[in-house]
Amino acid sequence: MSRSFFHSLMNPSSIAIVGASNNPQKMGTLHGLSILKDGFKGEFYPVHPKEKTVLGFPAYASPFDLPKAPDLAIFVVPAVHLLPVFEAFGKIGTKYAIVVTAGFKEAGSEGVKLEEKLKELARKYNIRFVGPNCMGIINRDISLNTTVCPIIGEPGKLGFISQSGTYVTQSFDYLGKRGIRLSKAVSVGNEADVNITDVLEYLGEDDQTTAISMYIESICDVKRFLRVARRITPNKPVIAQYIGGSEAGGRAGLSHTGAMAGKDYLYDGLFKQAGIIRVYSVEELYGIGWTLATQPKIRGNRIGIITNSGGPGSAIADTCEANGCEMPPFSEDLQKRIKPLLPSHAPCANPVDFTFDLNMDTMTSTVPDLLMKSGEVDGIVLHGAMSTGFLAAIYPYRPGLIPGASLEEVIKGATKDLKDSVQVPFNNNIPMTVSSFFDRSDQFTQDYEDNNVPVFDSPEKAAHAISALVKYKSIQDREPFTPPSELKATETAYRIIREATEKKQTALDEYAAKKLLASYGIPVVKEALCYSEEEAIKAAEKISCPVVLKACDPTIMHKTEKGLVHLHLADSRSVQNAYQDIQQRAGQQLPVIVAEMFQDKREFLAGLTLDEQFGHCLAFGLGGIFTEALGDVSYRIAPLSVGEADEILRDIKSFTLLTRYRGMAEINLKLLVSLLSILSKLALIHTEIKEIDINPILFKGGEPFVADALIVL
Amino acid sequence: MSRSFFHSLMNPSSIAIVGASNNPQKMGTLHGLSILKDGFKGEFYPVHPKEKTVLGFPAYASPFDLPKAPDLAIFVVPAVHLLPVFEAFGKIGTKYAIVVTAGFKEAGSEGVKLEEKLKELARKYNIRFVGPNCMGIINRDISLNTTVCPIIGEPGKLGFISQSGTYVTQSFDYLGKRGIRLSKAVSVGNEADVNITDVLEYLGEDDQTTAISMYIESICDVKRFLRVARRITPNKPVIAQYIGGSEAGGRAGLSHTGAMAGKDYLYDGLFKQAGIIRVYSVEELYGIGWTLATQPKIRGNRIGIITNSGGPGSAIADTCEANGCEMPPFSEDLQKRIKPLLPSHAPCANPVDFTFDLNMDTMTSTVPDLLMKSGEVDGIVLHGAMSTGFLAAIYPYRPGLIPGASLEEVIKGATKDLKDSVQVPFNNNIPMTVSSFFDRSDQFTQDYEDNNVPVFDSPEKAAHAISALVKYKSIQDREPFTPPSELKATETAYRIIREATEKKQTALDEYAAKKLLASYGIPVVKEALCYSEEEAIKAAEKISCPVVLKACDPTIMHKTEKGLVHLHLADSRSVQNAYQDIQQRAGQQLPVIVAEMFQDKREFLAGLTLDEQFGHCLAFGLGGIFTEALGDVSYRIAPLSVGEADEILRDIKSFTLLTRYRGMAEINLKLLVSLLSILSKLALIHTEIKEIDINPILFKGGEPFVADALIVL
Repeated sequence: MSRSFFHSLMNPSSIAIVGASNNPQKMGTLHGLSILKDGFKGEFYPVHPKEKTVLGFPAYASPFDLPKAPDLAIFVVPAVHLLPVFEAFGKIGTKYAIVVTAGFKEAGSEGVKLEEKLKELARKYNIRFVGPNCMGIINRDISLNTTVCPIIGEPGKLGFISQSGTYVTQSFDYLGKRGIRLSKAVSVGNEADVNITDVLEYLGEDDQTTAISMYIESICDVKRFLRVARRITPNKPVIAQYIGGSEAGGRAGLSHTGAMAGKDYLYDGLFKQAGIIRVYSVEELYGIGWTLATQPKIRGNRIGIITNSGGPGSAIADTCEANGCEMPPFSEDLQKRIKPLLPSHAPCANPVDFTFDLNMDTMTSTVPDLLMKSGEVDGIVLHGAMSTGFLAAIYPYRPGLIPGASLEEVIKGATKDLKDSVQVPFNNNIPMTVSSFFDRSDQFTQDYEDNNVPVFDSPEKAAHAISALVKYKSIQDREPFTPPSELKATETAYRIIREATEKKQTALDEYAAKKLLASYGIPVVKEALCYSEEEAIKAAEKISCPVVLKACDPTIMHKTEKGLVHLHLADSRSVQNAYQDIQQRAGQQLPVIVAEMFQDKREFLAGLTLDEQFGHCLAFGLGGIFTEALGDVSYRIAPLSVGEADEILRDIKSFTLLTRYRGMAEINLKLLVSLLSILSKLALIHTEIKEIDINPILFKGGEPFVADALIVL
Repeated sequence: MSRSFFHSLMNPSSIAIVGASNNPQKMGTLHGLSILKDGFKGEFYPVHPKEKTVLGFPAYASPFDLPKAPDLAIFVVPAVHLLPVFEAFGKIGTKYAIVVTAGFKEAGSEGVKLEEKLKELARKYNIRFVGPNCMGIINRDISLNTTVCPIIGEPGKLGFISQSGTYVTQSFDYLGKRGIRLSKAVSVGNEADVNITDVLEYLGEDDQTTAISMYIESICDVKRFLRVARRITPNKPVIAQYIGGSEAGGRAGLSHTGAMAGKDYLYDGLFKQAGIIRVYSVEELYGIGWTLATQPKIRGNRIGIITNSGGPGSAIADTCEANGCEMPPFSEDLQKRIKPLLPSHAPCANPVDFTFDLNMDTMTSTVPDLLMKSGEVDGIVLHGAMSTGFLAAIYPYRPGLIPGASLEEVIKGATKDLKDSVQVPFNNNIPMTVSSFFDRSDQFTQDYEDNNVPVFDSPEKAAHAISALVKYKSIQDREPFTPPSELKATETAYRIIREATEKKQTALDEYAAKKLLASYGIPVVKEALCYSEEEAIKAAEKISCPVVLKACDPTIMHKTEKGLVHLHLADSRSVQNAYQDIQQRAGQQLPVIVAEMFQDKREFLAGLTLDEQFGHCLAFGLGGIFTEALGDVSYRIAPLSVGEADEILRDIKSFTLLTRYRGMAEINLKLLVSLLSILSKLALIHTEIKEIDINPILFKGGEPFVADALIVL
C-alpha cells in the first residue's frame, strides 16, 4: 500500500518551530517543550527574532538562516505575522507544516480572507499543512508530541482525530488517569488543507493503530469520507461522536472552527453506511475506542458476568441486554465446576456472584479462565477486582489494629503479580472489560489498564463497552460493499424532464412524476390522466372502481385541503360528480388523475433530498400520517447498492411492519430494496432533479407500489 | 410532622455489635471500626463470647450481661448463630436492629425459612430491623457509619437508599474522589422488615437531606411507595435507577436480595406517576442526585454556556438541547458587556468561548456573575476552569525553565482564594454545573466540589445534570395531586358480570364488554347484537351502512383470521351474505354484532392489566397494527386522577397525533382523559375484572369511542 503524504507529515526527521521562546507563559514555548521532553529524536530548530538560544537549542533569526530546510515547520505566532514567515519556509523548501495560530476562518470575514491567502501560499510552495487554529499532532512511533500538554504512559493503540483541540491536549491528564493510551492523534483545526478524511485514511493504514476515534463537528468532503471509511471499517473499528446538531451547538461549532453545522440525521446515516460506530459523549469516544483498540475480536454476543456484588451484576446484565448481548445461563456442567470455587449460596448461573469475597485469584483468574475455555461465552464483564485501593480506603481505620504497619507497608504487602489475571483475555483470545469503583491507586485497575484491559468506573460503562465489540462484529459481518450497479437512463424520463423545464416548471406534475419513476421499473399505482368527464369515467371503468380522482397540476399545493382530491368513488356517477366538483373548485379546466383506490395501513415513504454538504441522500421511513409524528425515517448518501438499500429498511424502528406481522401479507422486501436502490440513482442520471418525495408507498399482495410522488426540479 | 420509627433506628444513643472482634480480617470488626472511627459519640458495646475487650472497649459475653439495653443492635454473625442472640436482645428490650448477616431469602428455601423465623422473633419482641443481608446505615447527623468502609469528606445533602450493599460501601472511595457527599444512607438488604419505602418516607422528612437517590431492584409495596413518593417529590427531588428488567438482571437480582424482578415498563410508569426522575446508571444516581441536592432550584430552561474551548461548548449545547433546555443567543447589550472581557474574536453569543485563556477570574467569576445577573439565563454550565491540576500536568516539562521551583512550590504559588468563583451560584441563587478534565488534584475541582458545586469529568455529563434540574422543575410545576374522584358502580355492569360468572365465562363477549363500558359513560361504537338474519339487516338499516358484522362469542379468539369478521358491508344484501357466511364458518348458530363501519388512521389502545406486584395498571398507547411494532405504550398504577390521565396521554411518543395535526380533526382530549380515568377505576369496583383491553379507540369528529373491547374475568 502506498503511503500517503500525511505519513510524511507525521514522521519528520527535523522540525522548526516559530513562536517558541524561553518564556514558559507562552504557548509556543509549551509546544516546543512537548517536542523536546516527550522524546523526539530528530533535529530541532527554534526560529526566534531575538534570542540566541531557545530551550537550550541555538535559535535562528529567520528560516533563511537555518542549516537546512526542516521537514516540518510549526507556527505559533500571531495571525498577522504568519504569512511572511510561512512563505519563507516555502522558499527554503519545507514541505509540511502545522499552523497552530488562530484568527482565521473561525474569526470572521477578515480571517476568511487571511485563510485564503494562507492556502494560496501553501499551493504555491506545495506545502501540506495541518490547521490553522489547531493543537498539533502526536506520533508515538517517533515520540513526537507537538501539543501543549505532556502525554502520559506508554504508547497505545488508539488513533484519535479531533476537530476540537481540547480533546488532544487538555484531556491528557484525564486519559492518563484512566490508562487510555493513544498511538497517534491529530487536532485538525480549521482544515484549510489537511482534513479529517486525510487523517482517517492515514490511520486506516497505520499498523500501530488498531481502532480510530473521531470527534466530528463537520465533514467537508462527505463522499470521499464515506469512500475512505468504508474501506477501513471492515478491518479496523472506527468510532465517531458528531456534535453540532443543535442550534447552539452549531453556533458554537461555527465560531470555533468556522465549519458548517450539519444535520444530525444525515451524519447518523453516513456513519451507519460507512460502518462507523456512533457514540454520544467524549467519554465513550475514549473508553469505547480504547476497548475496540485493545480487545480481541468478539465471536458472538454471549456475555459472562463475574461480580462481587449483585447490584453491579444486575446493572451489567440489563445494560448488556439493552445493547444486543445475551447472558445465557451456564450449562449444568459448567455451574458444577464453578460452584466449589465460590462461597456457599453464591449464584453461579451467570452472573457468577462472589458476594464480597476477597479471594481475588479465583475471581479474576480461575473463573474467567474457566468461562472463557468453556465455549459458553464470547466475552466477559468483571466487577469487583480490588486489592490495594480497597486497603488504602479502609486503612484509616486499621492503624489501631496493626500499629506498626504504615500505609506504604500495607500496600506493599498486598501488591502481587497479577499476570494471570490481566492476561486472561489475551491468553484465551476472548475480550473482557472491567468495572471498578477504584482508580489507578488500586493495583488491579492499574495493572489491567497498563496491560490493555479497559477499566470503567461503573458497571454500566463496562457493559456498554463490551456491547460495542458486538456492534463491531455486526459491522464486520456485513456483506462486503459493492458499488451500486449502473442504471441506464430512459428516454421517457428525459422527455418528461425536458418538457417540464421547457415549460419552466419547478416540479413535475404528479402524473408525470409517476410516469418517470415507472420508466425505471418502479411500480406505481394503476392510473390515467384524463382531460374530460368521459375520459375519467372510461378510465374508472378500465381501472375498476373504487377509484380516486385528483386534480393534476404541478403548481397547486395542498390538494386535499382544497377539496381537489376525491376518494372512494364507487361508480361512474360518483366519478362524474367528483370530476365536476374538482373543476368547479379549481376555477379552471384541469386535467384529472383517475387512480385505483387502495388502502393499506402500512404506509411508507421514500425520497431523495438534496443537502449542501451531503449531496443527494435517500430517505426511507414510516409514511402517511405518521411521518412527522413519529419521525421514523433513516437516511443514506445516494446512490445505494442493493446491500445498502436492504440495510436502510432494517434501520427504522417500524421494520417489524415489513415482516410477516400479525397475519398481514408478507412484504416482498427484494422489490422494496430494488425500488430504493433505483430511486437513489435517479438524481445522478438526471441532474435537474433536486428532490423526490414518494409518500405513501403501499403494498398490494405484499408488493410495493408508489401511490403518490412529487419530483422537484 | 411526627417522626417515624425509622428516625429512632437511625439515631441510637447506644449501639451493641455482635460479630466484631480484634481480628481486622473479619467483616464484623470492620463494621465496628467504622462506628468507632467515623465519630459516633454514643455508647458502644461489643458482644463477644471470649474476648475481654474488643477494639479497646470492654466486651460482653452475652446481651444479658450488658449494663443496659442498647438502642440499636448490629449483627454480623453467621446465619446459623443469629436467632438466639437476636432473641436475647429482644428479651432485654432492644427495639432496633441491623442484620448484616447473609444466608436468608437470597440463599434458597432454607434461607426463606430462616428469614421467616427472624421476622417472627422481631414481631414477638417488637424489634424493627434493617436487613438481613445488608451493609448497614449511615447518619452523618450523629457521625454514625455502620458499614465496612470509611466515609470520606464532610457531611453532604444527598440521601441514598440502596438495594445493593456495594453502592453504600465499595463506592465510598469513588464518591470521595468526586466530592459527592451523603447525608444519610441505608443499605436495605432483603427488606424482611424495613423496606425502601420506610427509608424514603424518613428521608423525605429529613431536613439534612435535600435530594434522595434510590437504587431499586424491586418494590414490595408499590401502592404505599407511590403514596409516599408522591408526597415527597413536589418538595424534594427523588432520583431512581431501576435494574432487573433484563432476564439475566432479574436472575442476578433474584439471587442477591431474593426480590422478584419486575417489568421495566411498570417501574417506568410508577416513577413518572410518582414524580421520580429515572436515571440509567449508578454514576447518574450519584452525580445527578448530588446536583439536585446541592443546586438552587432552576427557574426556567435557559442555559448559558461558558467554555475555554469550542468542542466541549458544542457538546454541552447539543446535550442540553436534547434534554429540554434552550441556549438562547444573548442580547446585544449583554454581548457588548461580555466582549471586552474575552480574547479578541472569541464568540460570546452563548456559548461564551474563552478559547484557551488562562484568565480564570474572568471566566469563573466575572462572566458567570454577569450572566446570572442579566436575567437571560436560568442556569450555567461551565467547562475549562483549571489551575493547579493543569500546572501539575505540564510541570514535568517546566523544571528546565524554573530550575528552583518544586512541584509543591508551583502548586502553592498558583493556589488562590476561589470564593468568588465557587459561590457564584449561591450568591445569585442560580444553579451551575461544571465540566473538567481535571480531578481533585486541581484546586478548582476540589474547591467547587467542597463548596457544593458539582464537577463532572465530561461536558455531556455536566449538561445532562443541569437538564435534570429542568426536569425536576417540570415535576414541581405539575398540578398538585388530588386523589381520583369516586366512580359509582352501575347496575348494568353488575348484571353483565354476574351473568358471565354464572355461565362460568372467563371473559365477557365483545358486546357485553362494550355495554359494560358504556354503562360508565365510556363512548362506544353504535352497534346491535343480532340473533337472526332479519335482525341483522334491520340493525344495519338503523345504524346505516356501511357496517361491520362480527361473530359474538367470548370463547372464540382470532375472529379475523377465522373469517368471522366482515367489513365494509355497503347494503342489506351484503349484510345477509355476511351473516350466512359467519354462521357457516362458525359451524354453529352464533349471535352477531352489527356495528357502524368506521375507519380512522389514528388508532389508540387503552387497557387495564393486572400485575402480581403492581396490581391493576392502566395502559395507553398507539393501537391497531402499530401496537407491537412500535411499542409506544405507557403505564400507570390504577386508579388515575384526571391529571394523571392527562399525563399518560402526553407521555407517549405519538402524542402529536392527538393534537391538531396535518389538518385532521382536533381531538377532544378532555373526553379521552375522562375515558382513561373511568377505565382505570373499573377493576377497583368490579374485583372480578382481571384485564380490560380496548383496541382500537377511534375518533369521530375528534371524539373518542371504543371500537373493540375485551374484558377478562
